[in-house]
Amino acid sequence: MVTVSFPDRSWLDDVGPVDGMTPVVWDPRTGPPGEAVDLYIAPYMTRPDGVAVVAEQPSVRLVQLLSAGFDNIVPVLPDGVALANAKGVHDAATAELALALVLASQRGFDEFAWAQAKGEWLPRQFRPGLADKRVLVLGYGSVGRAIAERLAPFEVTTTAVAARARAGDDLVDAVHGTDELLDLLPEHDIVISVLPGSDATAQMLGEEALSALADGSLVVNVGRGTALDTEAALRHAGRLRFALDVTDPEPLPEGHPLWSAPGVIISPHVGGVTEAFRPRAVTMLRRQIAAMVAGEQPINLVHAG
Amino acid sequence: MVTVSFPDRSWLDDVGPVDGMTPVVWDPRTGPPGEAVDLYIAPYMTRPDGVAVVAEQPSVRLVQLLSAGFDNIVPVLPDGVALANAKGVHDAATAELALALVLASQRGFDEFAWAQAKGEWLPRQFRPGLADKRVLVLGYGSVGRAIAERLAPFEVTTTAVAARARAGDDLVDAVHGTDELLDLLPEHDIVISVLPGSDATAQMLGEEALSALADGSLVVNVGRGTALDTEAALRHAGRLRFALDVTDPEPLPEGHPLWSAPGVIISPHVGGVTEAFRPRAVTMLRRQIAAMVAGEQPINLVHAG
Repeated sequence: MVTVSFPDRSWLDDVGPVDGMTPVVWDPRTGPPGEAVDLYIAPYMTRPDGVAVVAEQPSVRLVQLLSAGFDNIVPVLPDGVALANAKGVHDAATAELALALVLASQRGFDEFAWAQAKGEWLPRQFRPGLADKRVLVLGYGSVGRAIAERLAPFEVTTTAVAARARAGDDLVDAVHGTDELLDLLPEHDIVISVLPGSDATAQMLGEEALSALADGSLVVNVGRGTALDTEAALRHAGRLRFALDVTDPEPLPEGHPLWSAPGVIISPHVGGVTEAFRPRAVTMLRRQIAAMVAGEQPINLVHAG
Repeated sequence: MVTVSFPDRSWLDDVGPVDGMTPVVWDPRTGPPGEAVDLYIAPYMTRPDGVAVVAEQPSVRLVQLLSAGFDNIVPVLPDGVALANAKGVHDAATAELALALVLASQRGFDEFAWAQAKGEWLPRQFRPGLADKRVLVLGYGSVGRAIAERLAPFEVTTTAVAARARAGDDLVDAVHGTDELLDLLPEHDIVISVLPGSDATAQMLGEEALSALADGSLVVNVGRGTALDTEAALRHAGRLRFALDVTDPEPLPEGHPLWSAPGVIISPHVGGVTEAFRPRAVTMLRRQIAAMVAGEQPINLVHAG
């Protein structure tokens, strides 16, 4: 038998019985269960201390996250504990948020919201729109591909950029490497960053990259806030537009100049936070538990332990 | 030779020379040109009086609109003058606005805008999102199809409804008739109306239709404002959400209760108002002028005159 801990009763109920699994609840705020847990499922979008608690039970072999980002979790893992993320679970919701941010900025939804608050019907003004635009997707893993899929019918051209250049797929002719980024930026109207947090991606969209973008271009960030240099973004706000689901610092404190910078739209890190999350997460958890019961390699392994 | 009048110099310049065409400028606010005009191109989104001026020149045989809607134009046309609309020109921009309205409401962008104005990072709250939703597209002409195309990669199911039932296409299994609407509504989470203005469509989304929708459903209108009964919408606002690019009355006057009704997002009739408009309109005008020079039937004829 494999003992699996769920962060609360609702997850245990939704996953339901799995052959070979003993389910228990382990809410990191209330302490470990009596049973020796093999697989610890962390609360959704947990802080590192919601994972550090596994040190209290040396039986834990694998930590399963319900979110995609894990750069802040690895440092708190005890030796020998492996880590799996929720790769794929958030693709649909995060990709649709990227499109929502693109469309909101390209069509002027921030100005419509201000005007609505005043009961003011704005005069007609031509907005950039999305059709005919050249979009660069920066970070071309499963979320990047889900974004490219959703962009395809919008009459745009899409360019994919990833850490290393590779062959294209059914959506893009080629995947370019980040070493080509500065040359590619001037030829694009919209940049969507899906970059994860790491030393290699930190401030990749900094002064040099933002300077390479033409006036009126849009920068969207649905990856990690650290990929965009906030100070550089503030210098270019107005000349460029920004639509950001993630920020650096995050959460953005009250009074931070980014809140009121011109042409900046902010959503509060809600990439995966929709009703699409739970059914996809439940399916993933059943697969992970089944793999563990069968003695197979975990799925979505991001740190071997 | 065919004499074509353009509403301003910029349109004349963008269309450029066409064999067999004499171009002139006719701005309805400043009076007709000296030449006898055959084809009158009305200003973009003109009021009826911007077309009624053709009575001053009996030579006019065809009026070309730069917008899709024409229900308010037909009554002012002199006998014998035909009318063509800009079918297809606005498909991309209008369809992307429909998606923008859907995503803005499903993801909570109105609340994000209010929070941003206060510099407040909202706590995490699961929003409906778009993935897994059942979307009904009401009105399945060229714009309705363009919306269905853009919805396809979002992991939704799409149902098409048009005036009369007919066979489906590559996007939908079948096109249902509006006589089935009341039976279909309870099975859908999102309704997108692209209905044109007419006696048949007036208040099709009235008390009975809105009552058939489940709590939390979303109604989007990018067709004509008259298709939605505003009083009924106000009664259901809060239980249902609304995202409206067109309203009745329009423009929505200051102080109208729709501005501040709960769960209502309003954009000021900007369906076609993007940079995608002009290149597509220019292509359409060149085709229309060429047809007239060749003595062929006009394209996009909506009223025979």
